[in-house]
Amino acid sequence: MRITRPAPAAYRRIATEEAFAPKELIDIYRKILQQKTVDPGFANLMGFYMSSPSERARHIMSCLLDLDEQRIRHMDEAGVDMQVLALTSPGVQIMDRDTAVAFAPLANDLLAEAIARHPTRLAGMIAVAPQDPAAAAKEIERCVSKLGLHAVVINSHTHGEYLSDPKFWDIFEAAEAHDTPIYLHPNAMPASMIGHFLEAGLDGAVYGFGVETGLHALRIITSGALDRFPKLQIILGHMGEALPFWSYRLDYMHAATVRSKRYDAIKPIGRKPSDYLKDNFHITCSGMAWPQAIKFTQDLVGTDRVLYAMDYPYQHAVEEVHALDAMDMPAEVKRAFFQTNAEKLFKIAPL
Amino acid sequence: MRITRPAPAAYRRIATEEAFAPKELIDIYRKILQQKTVDPGFANLMGFYMSSPSERARHIMSCLLDLDEQRIRHMDEAGVDMQVLALTSPGVQIMDRDTAVAFAPLANDLLAEAIARHPTRLAGMIAVAPQDPAAAAKEIERCVSKLGLHAVVINSHTHGEYLSDPKFWDIFEAAEAHDTPIYLHPNAMPASMIGHFLEAGLDGAVYGFGVETGLHALRIITSGALDRFPKLQIILGHMGEALPFWSYRLDYMHAATVRSKRYDAIKPIGRKPSDYLKDNFHITCSGMAWPQAIKFTQDLVGTDRVLYAMDYPYQHAVEEVHALDAMDMPAEVKRAFFQTNAEKLFKIAPL
Repeated sequence: MRITRPAPAAYRRIATEEAFAPKELIDIYRKILQQKTVDPGFANLMGFYMSSPSERARHIMSCLLDLDEQRIRHMDEAGVDMQVLALTSPGVQIMDRDTAVAFAPLANDLLAEAIARHPTRLAGMIAVAPQDPAAAAKEIERCVSKLGLHAVVINSHTHGEYLSDPKFWDIFEAAEAHDTPIYLHPNAMPASMIGHFLEAGLDGAVYGFGVETGLHALRIITSGALDRFPKLQIILGHMGEALPFWSYRLDYMHAATVRSKRYDAIKPIGRKPSDYLKDNFHITCSGMAWPQAIKFTQDLVGTDRVLYAMDYPYQHAVEEVHALDAMDMPAEVKRAFFQTNAEKLFKIAPL
Repeated sequence: MRITRPAPAAYRRIATEEAFAPKELIDIYRKILQQKTVDPGFANLMGFYMSSPSERARHIMSCLLDLDEQRIRHMDEAGVDMQVLALTSPGVQIMDRDTAVAFAPLANDLLAEAIARHPTRLAGMIAVAPQDPAAAAKEIERCVSKLGLHAVVINSHTHGEYLSDPKFWDIFEAAEAHDTPIYLHPNAMPASMIGHFLEAGLDGAVYGFGVETGLHALRIITSGALDRFPKLQIILGHMGEALPFWSYRLDYMHAATVRSKRYDAIKPIGRKPSDYLKDNFHITCSGMAWPQAIKFTQDLVGTDRVLYAMDYPYQHAVEEVHALDAMDMPAEVKRAFFQTNAEKLFKIAPL
């Protein structure tokens, strides 16, 4: 199939969930994969991509490692004006605490250097090590003030622990104070959850990622964290991991569960779960380049909270840009979707 | 809040995912709950409802046990003309094999007797024990020919096993042969999956049920079972457990996974996952009385495949009937949704 390059548009196309991996990260992953016991989800995810001879795996590795000529060429071919980059999942979160705390600043410095080489084409998110929440909070401050990065990426759980636990809330406090949204990106499912998904080959992007990241977002909502940090903004990819579609049931059953006093963990919170989706979340269409789902989500959370993302290189799909360009949507809404919502959320200077 | 009774409508309101529990079932559950090791999901689900003093739990138990005066009165108050009944989850699937095989016919006989007492108000589904697929197949045949029941209910996994395993396919063969759709209803998550959901109070109807039942449906689709049994019809509640919303990503990532040769379990199948949703599934709105989600799903799978359900008594919500009556939808589509799709699927005689 010949893919024609998308025509120039009346908006900048800013793709907001795009992955990279420095060689130094892959070297650490290789050491982790050689350990006696390896997390099954990680082994099946990066272990697969780093070793499979399949065309898909080799293409992904080649794209992850490049922050210059090939990436910019792929962006040009796809009509993507700017990528907002994140250290690929699981980032530093699969590492031990000391390695993670040491590596996150290196990754952020490498990212800032790439952005400096391509300032109109690349933006990025801050990698942090939730293994040390105080260090993560400091790294957010350093990257905002020294590197000009204005968002944080966290790849869902860290060794089976969730940000709903108050021990992590130094990170929320720093993110709220520095006005850096947190992109809650999928991670491989934790070992204690993955079994029945993995045996069926459904643990990854096809289903398991969404399940686990959706759980994480719900845990944050129901923990009351967003009452404590009311200005915090969380970004979900993959059309909100289906939480917009679930929102009616989330509201009904959360209220019923509170009333039933069934769980210590489900206490009254300030508002309905869907209210937090509307006030504390932004949602990108990574992996869901489907106008129907985009419009459904815009109708729920507002057109100012739904953003474009490609999910390069995991979903390197030029034809999706054509499909989204062709959406039947008012021009100003389409410009918000592709451009201005991202400029505002990630503090990207207009051209 | 005073709830006004819905006005008579131009259609029969047939609710298609309504639960009951004979006293004999509760007696068996009580014995299981007294065993030394109890499945954590079951303990938290029926163990909670059977013992909690909360108003919600006591109301649910009272409603589950009644198949006569109170149930008909609640139906009248809600404007529900007919309930399609299923033995409440997990039905016999939490029992040991011998108990399950023995109890399913008793439950089906009790159900048929209730239907005989209220033939214009109640219809029902066949309970089977997947623990013995051959016995389950025979029970389907018996209930179709002797009791006039024309659908099967299976409460997702059975002791952590899924119908995607060909060892269960006697059940699919019988269901296809007797033209009995299988309602794939949620079960408590298996012990090997529930941990991070349960600790946050999100294992139940609020989220975990949908995750686990959605996984089950995807396992059936990706196993190739629906190529082997192309006329089989599966019913999903809760707006298809969000699979309609996920369908773009399911199609893209299933194809990518097949190409990558990453899993033995993910081999080529006849069509795209969404094609099976459109041809082999019916979807009810139990727990999702939300016009936006109903219309989204109708647009994807067709107005002849989306049906009304209340999910009584877990969602005993008269105000939802008002909301769905008021949907902005062509009269013939609303009649299909409330009435004629159910009459056809469950072989309910028109009045």
